[in-house]
Amino acid sequence: MIRFESDYTEGAHEQIMKRLVETNEEQTPGYGMDEHCEKARQYIRKACRAEHADVHFLVGGTQANTIMIASILRPHQGVVAASTGHIAVHETGAIEATGHKVLTLPSPDGKLQAEQVKELYEAHWNDVTHEHMVQPGLVYISHPTENGTTYSKSELAALSKVCRECDLPLVIDGARLGYGLAAQDSDLSLADIASLCDMFYIGGTKVGALMGEAVVIIKDALKKDFRYIIKQNGGMLAKGRLLGIQFETLFEEGLYHDISKHAVDMAMLIREAFAAKGVCFRYASMTNQQFPILPNEILRKLREKYSYSHWETIDARHSAVRFCTSWATKKEHVEMLIKDIKELL
Amino acid sequence: MIRFESDYTEGAHEQIMKRLVETNEEQTPGYGMDEHCEKARQYIRKACRAEHADVHFLVGGTQANTIMIASILRPHQGVVAASTGHIAVHETGAIEATGHKVLTLPSPDGKLQAEQVKELYEAHWNDVTHEHMVQPGLVYISHPTENGTTYSKSELAALSKVCRECDLPLVIDGARLGYGLAAQDSDLSLADIASLCDMFYIGGTKVGALMGEAVVIIKDALKKDFRYIIKQNGGMLAKGRLLGIQFETLFEEGLYHDISKHAVDMAMLIREAFAAKGVCFRYASMTNQQFPILPNEILRKLREKYSYSHWETIDARHSAVRFCTSWATKKEHVEMLIKDIKELL
Amino acid sequence: MIRFESDYTEGAHEQIMKRLVETNEEQTPGYGMDEHCEKARQYIRKACRAEHADVHFLVGGTQANTIMIASILRPHQGVVAASTGHIAVHETGAIEATGHKVLTLPSPDGKLQAEQVKELYEAHWNDVTHEHMVQPGLVYISHPTENGTTYSKSELAALSKVCRECDLPLVIDGARLGYGLAAQDSDLSLADIASLCDMFYIGGTKVGALMGEAVVIIKDALKKDFRYIIKQNGGMLAKGRLLGIQFETLFEEGLYHDISKHAVDMAMLIREAFAAKGVCFRYASMTNQQFPILPNEILRKLREKYSYSHWETIDARHSAVRFCTSWATKKEHVEMLIKDIKELL
Amino acid sequence: MIRFESDYTEGAHEQIMKRLVETNEEQTPGYGMDEHCEKARQYIRKACRAEHADVHFLVGGTQANTIMIASILRPHQGVVAASTGHIAVHETGAIEATGHKVLTLPSPDGKLQAEQVKELYEAHWNDVTHEHMVQPGLVYISHPTENGTTYSKSELAALSKVCRECDLPLVIDGARLGYGLAAQDSDLSLADIASLCDMFYIGGTKVGALMGEAVVIIKDALKKDFRYIIKQNGGMLAKGRLLGIQFETLFEEGLYHDISKHAVDMAMLIREAFAAKGVCFRYASMTNQQFPILPNEILRKLREKYSYSHWETIDARHSAVRFCTSWATKKEHVEMLIKDIKELL
Repeated sequence: MIRFESDYTEGAHEQIMKRLVETNEEQTPGYGMDEHCEKARQYIRKACRAEHADVHFLVGGTQANTIMIASILRPHQGVVAASTGHIAVHETGAIEATGHKVLTLPSPDGKLQAEQVKELYEAHWNDVTHEHMVQPGLVYISHPTENGTTYSKSELAALSKVCRECDLPLVIDGARLGYGLAAQDSDLSLADIASLCDMFYIGGTKVGALMGEAVVIIKDALKKDFRYIIKQNGGMLAKGRLLGIQFETLFEEGLYHDISKHAVDMAMLIREAFAAKGVCFRYASMTNQQFPILPNEILRKLREKYSYSHWETIDARHSAVRFCTSWATKKEHVEMLIKDIKELL
Repeated sequence: MIRFESDYTEGAHEQIMKRLVETNEEQTPGYGMDEHCEKARQYIRKACRAEHADVHFLVGGTQANTIMIASILRPHQGVVAASTGHIAVHETGAIEATGHKVLTLPSPDGKLQAEQVKELYEAHWNDVTHEHMVQPGLVYISHPTENGTTYSKSELAALSKVCRECDLPLVIDGARLGYGLAAQDSDLSLADIASLCDMFYIGGTKVGALMGEAVVIIKDALKKDFRYIIKQNGGMLAKGRLLGIQFETLFEEGLYHDISKHAVDMAMLIREAFAAKGVCFRYASMTNQQFPILPNEILRKLREKYSYSHWETIDARHSAVRFCTSWATKKEHVEMLIKDIKELL
Repeated sequence: MIRFESDYTEGAHEQIMKRLVETNEEQTPGYGMDEHCEKARQYIRKACRAEHADVHFLVGGTQANTIMIASILRPHQGVVAASTGHIAVHETGAIEATGHKVLTLPSPDGKLQAEQVKELYEAHWNDVTHEHMVQPGLVYISHPTENGTTYSKSELAALSKVCRECDLPLVIDGARLGYGLAAQDSDLSLADIASLCDMFYIGGTKVGALMGEAVVIIKDALKKDFRYIIKQNGGMLAKGRLLGIQFETLFEEGLYHDISKHAVDMAMLIREAFAAKGVCFRYASMTNQQFPILPNEILRKLREKYSYSHWETIDARHSAVRFCTSWATKKEHVEMLIKDIKELL
Repeated sequence: MIRFESDYTEGAHEQIMKRLVETNEEQTPGYGMDEHCEKARQYIRKACRAEHADVHFLVGGTQANTIMIASILRPHQGVVAASTGHIAVHETGAIEATGHKVLTLPSPDGKLQAEQVKELYEAHWNDVTHEHMVQPGLVYISHPTENGTTYSKSELAALSKVCRECDLPLVIDGARLGYGLAAQDSDLSLADIASLCDMFYIGGTKVGALMGEAVVIIKDALKKDFRYIIKQNGGMLAKGRLLGIQFETLFEEGLYHDISKHAVDMAMLIREAFAAKGVCFRYASMTNQQFPILPNEILRKLREKYSYSHWETIDARHSAVRFCTSWATKKEHVEMLIKDIKELL
């Protein structure tokens, strides 16, 4: 079985494993106060061109989203998100468990438009009964989205502008940020991300690390007491160095970028193979997740050799599925899949 | 600097690192549904002599405590704990953040006595205004305690009996469980623990693993939907296999026991060196944490070569401090420390 | 200004005021343990034909909804509701503040259909990633709905059947229950409500009382420790007798029914006046709330003498508005309004 | 049975009942936006000599405490209180249910000393692991305390000074504020209270009203969005006018002060009767609650005619009990009790 079901089916990039083994016997202080974490922070600040940013390392994505959001909102405020956003669907109510409503907006492709946010904001404040409703308190987007789509620089700038006008912090879930930045149709850099939002995280779990997400706080007013919120939410790893070492490795010499590009290259090969056979896609993704719509009988045959995720039932005979590549995807596996696509379709 | 400040200053036991490297390219399903997790579950059930137990792997201790407790309590219930309990002091209100009060009982040594729990329970139900007070909903202890002390088999049996009479689930924080079981004065086995409580966790972070805690649920009524609660609290690791592989290694052939014993042996050497010089101890710990009471001027000298934790100011000239050993403690470091103790004191 | 904007613009029915004054100097125990509360409980049980029901008195509707729902759900569960449901829109996230997501289903008229609930339930359990999503834990409806619509006996029976099959408690928000039961097209009795759901409340605030809602718990398993949950949520009135006296008055000799019928009769007069002029209604309400769609210029004129609520902007020149009647609505006011409708339209 | 068990055994002061009846048919907007509320706000601001204060009306004390505290704290912060404080003991974990720990300080008499708060604050910030502990976020006291004791002006000024130095808002629970201000040994005025704290509430439930507490927000930074927090916590009464009318009556011409004084006068008569017989008191209360320590056999006899609250078991033969007076206490009842005290003791 060759797995394309997700982008977390392997361990970590070999350079990370090597570094973890090399440093294994070092004695360090706990909770992210070690030198590896400090170095990783510096590399990340540099990559973001955000010298004054605070950087914190967390273990996973649900944790990162929950902590970022809980640190910002007052009790009566909610987080604005696309109805397909990860926090709205696939985190078992982690946000609500901290007391906050997710205020969802419809989205055909997983993205929020600046205009939508402005309308929601104005609708709230224009309503005479606004105190009877959850107040929008921040805007959450993911880049790339859960559907593999990406924001263009102008789209993100427009969203950022509206958020700043409305005094709504803009928070970006970057679980797959590397793959979004490496998309061929992307004109966004990491520095753009950092300059346009107020807080975001750089995903490691799905991009080369064993586990780990780096939260970057840009806006000064949001930095205060963040470590308390991490600890309260069970996110403060005793051996914080493990996260530091991994992000140090990923950001020291561009590894994060290189392996992200590899994943996207592999995804594009798969995309082209499907497209060449006239297959349609559920979403226009140029990132590491591809969502072909395929006849169920073809899927049954593919399933004998490959794992993928079921995404949506299109009709009685067709399904949209997800094939993921990652930093770990082997070219020979992709070639094998392409060969089978050619033969089966 | 030789670090004795905590038991999480190094990475992981070399066998674990080896196994992580060997399995790094394996492709597995996520979220703990892989074969390594399954094997680890079987090893742990066997070690606990608890064939029907559910076993779940989490990343850290605050997470484990929060998830265990939140999974059990109804909103108006609280958790009974020693006033020194980890959840009462050092988790930044993680339990309260899930809506529950920690009902503390005084404890000179970190342990709860059966009688205390019975009294609190009866006091609650005998009070005519009990509906105006938080209802005791479960009992939380740690073994060994934060002070390094351990429960004897008869003490734990008495506590267990009271808890069952009062229909209060008994939950054990086993962050350092290995070190408690390896204590020379302990007559408790892992199977005893499993038979006397309703839910507990076996700590990996402090006992050989990079990170990871194995929650063991004994009581059937407490098993339902536990994975939802894990996910909601950000505890479901995408690459769950990392935890499975580590616990597989620790419980396959007794490694957990062996390395725990090493740590305790090292601690006893340090203890004896202090005791031989007439030093008193803040707590009667026979586990990996030692709490000598030392003159501040001696501490100043020790600090030049060794790190330790400040625990309590005893008087203007004396402090209680903590020296921790662990699975990773090197005998030569202990010997060096002992030599210095002999010379300084 | 004659107010039709809501059904809580006056104090209480004169019989209630009389009773409150008469009993004012009585000394009673607090927190709902007095004889007035006990009598009111008996009257309500009798009216519901539910001898074994528990009855609790609360001050307001948000409180009642929050307490009912929080008392039932485990942390990972959510409450299924129409997207227009009061808890989903107009309670400032009170449900989320207790940690629970509101799982909304679309509804053109404010009602949930049995089939919808079944589909949502099955979709959850059929999804392989269901542990990553909030589990449906109970179903909340309002009768009548926020839109004035009502369930027929067969609709409610079908919903009840599905809920029992799926082990989802069915909870009814009866803020305006009297007006729903008094609707001319309603074939539901209070006893039907009690037999088909698991917990509900009988609204007093909008139906004759100064304030107060009576929660009726039908299902035994949901009765335990309810008073703790009331207290924790700030819902336990020190002078509980105030609620007891009011519900005693309302249910002793059918006052609740009589005044509800009056409100609906008044609403039907208004409805007929609008309908006679060819006015369309936003919702097919036969209860005390009427939602005519009117030209904005007519509204401007009505506004000089009458208050109403803006409900929805239909187009540049038309709005749907709400006219409410209540137990307190004076016939001469309705006649004046009708006369003006005839003249203006 | 003559009730001295609590200060909420009757309805409301006759002037309030009269006003409620007189205004019963008035039509007003809901949720505290009516003219009675507005007038009451003005009277209260004037009485507090706090022209710029925000004033909000809530139904009960648990609600008031929860809403005040939840509106101020960030998630990782806790509220500092005496271990006997109402929020620490008798609100069924209402504060914890909003996610916050109550950080208790020992207190023999129910009061907090400035020094204690300073020590706790410094201990927190001096601890290197402070991020692992709940951060003190505000200070809560009650005046008078649950034990009937009161702060002197200099004590409150000292506490206020420390709170301002430490940037900890000072919040006062004034459930029985009138009785505290009327204490013969009190040198505090309502204006002093308002100038020395940041937020407090003036209790109505126990001082003349059917129900209701007036929250007064002094500090500008704490005013924002308070009504949202009220609504979210189920504290926004639909017919808010009911609270407005009551506080209007209480503060229009000094009624609140006069009836408070009556209660304290009655309590002093009882106190003197006990003292004349050599009875000791559990607390040095000069307010409406008296805590004599009496032989159990005397209590058994008193119980035949009078209700009181059991407070504490002193030894096998003595108990501390509570006798409460209130605005409603009849002089003839007090005289009867005094006569019996004289005869029995």
